[in-house]
Amino acid sequence: MHVEYQTLMPSLIRIVLVDTSHPGNIGAAARAMKNMALSELTLVRPREFPSSEAAARASGADDILQRARVAQTLEEAVADCAIVAGATSRPRMHYWKVFDARAAAREIVKLEPQPVAVVFGSERYGLSNEELNRCNWLIRIPANPEYESLNLSQAVQIIAYELFLARGATNAVPLEREAPLATAQEMHRLYEHLEQVLLEVDFRDRTPSSGHLMGRLRRLLNRAELDQNEMNILRGVLSAVQNKRRTAGDK
Amino acid sequence: MHVEYQTLMPSLIRIVLVDTSHPGNIGAAARAMKNMALSELTLVRPREFPSSEAAARASGADDILQRARVAQTLEEAVADCAIVAGATSRPRMHYWKVFDARAAAREIVKLEPQPVAVVFGSERYGLSNEELNRCNWLIRIPANPEYESLNLSQAVQIIAYELFLARGATNAVPLEREAPLATAQEMHRLYEHLEQVLLEVDFRDRTPSSGHLMGRLRRLLNRAELDQNEMNILRGVLSAVQNKRRTAGDK
Repeated sequence: MHVEYQTLMPSLIRIVLVDTSHPGNIGAAARAMKNMALSELTLVRPREFPSSEAAARASGADDILQRARVAQTLEEAVADCAIVAGATSRPRMHYWKVFDARAAAREIVKLEPQPVAVVFGSERYGLSNEELNRCNWLIRIPANPEYESLNLSQAVQIIAYELFLARGATNAVPLEREAPLATAQEMHRLYEHLEQVLLEVDFRDRTPSSGHLMGRLRRLLNRAELDQNEMNILRGVLSAVQNKRRTAGDK
Repeated sequence: MHVEYQTLMPSLIRIVLVDTSHPGNIGAAARAMKNMALSELTLVRPREFPSSEAAARASGADDILQRARVAQTLEEAVADCAIVAGATSRPRMHYWKVFDARAAAREIVKLEPQPVAVVFGSERYGLSNEELNRCNWLIRIPANPEYESLNLSQAVQIIAYELFLARGATNAVPLEREAPLATAQEMHRLYEHLEQVLLEVDFRDRTPSSGHLMGRLRRLLNRAELDQNEMNILRGVLSAVQNKRRTAGDK
């Protein structure tokens, strides 16, 4: 019944906290991470950082705070990540692959050593729709439907705990891919290219209630988790559309 | 993949916090409990209670604090319990049945409706030997052997989370979609349309080893599991490309 938990190898799994209001939560999250052998923390627009309160709550995990990166945008924070997973308690998940915490941890571990980001929104509002549109997956923490909203650092703790178990428990053979997954930055360039082409062909979306078009297209393609070859194929298609138009226009 | 978590029956599982120093931890523990549908909190010799800091950290879980019992001894706090399980990170477990958090939760749930106590010691020292001697079981939370000691409320959160899962909170309700999934036939038409457009724009795939292009594009889009609105948007994009080309060509 009893096990000694083993020391795990350093992990590239990144915890990203967006628009955190309370520095205490940043410190508590750092401690929660170190307890579960995670070390990569990125803070997007923290209200206060560095902070003595964060350091106090981090307890012996101040090394995590010291090496934390600060970014101005989520885009910048996850640019090199193969998968971006957003933690959310809201049931607005029609367009994403949604995993509960345990299943998410198992999936994330399979992707190592590619960097993966698990993203947490602000204490009050969670992740915005625009931030969610940058996510490939959503992660839900099972909770009381009558009182679902966990404290930020507690949510980090549960995800980190599940990741710790999944990392220790798996002798999983990594999924063999033909090519590495496209990074968030590469996908961003693909979306910019797509948006450009949609403008050039005067595309107007007439689908009822479809909301913001680029947001929908992002979610749709994020769901597909493109590898780099696939991303390149789509870039090629977009370039072909542009070239053909220009040639045709030149005639 | 997606589940709605169901409302659980009230539980007799009791969280007992012994010699808690920081009232903030009591509040955070109450919130963690309510998030996971637990409501029975007993405090043994809390240094400060009631406390405004506890109430602030409890957020919407102040009802848990209001009904919390205060006891002078652990003995009193667990007198009516069938099993007393002590949470500890110390490896001093030769004389107890030791479970990790997940296994403990499964065992505890089997005992319902008999009351069971899960006991947490002080932030600094954990449970004393005398308190451990009152425990039937020990519970360990798997953690980084180099930094094992979780914040008190985080430890409560993980145990409460495992209890929530073990109590069987996952009865899946089917995902509500904005629109039904596109049928295989609709997807087939989309692929035909896409193939036509690729021909019209003279797209040649130059990706090394990409295999049959349409096969790849199919797999990629199949992975995304499009609903009918999304499928219509893509059809619209393809039509826009065609129209624009024809207009340009006519000039």
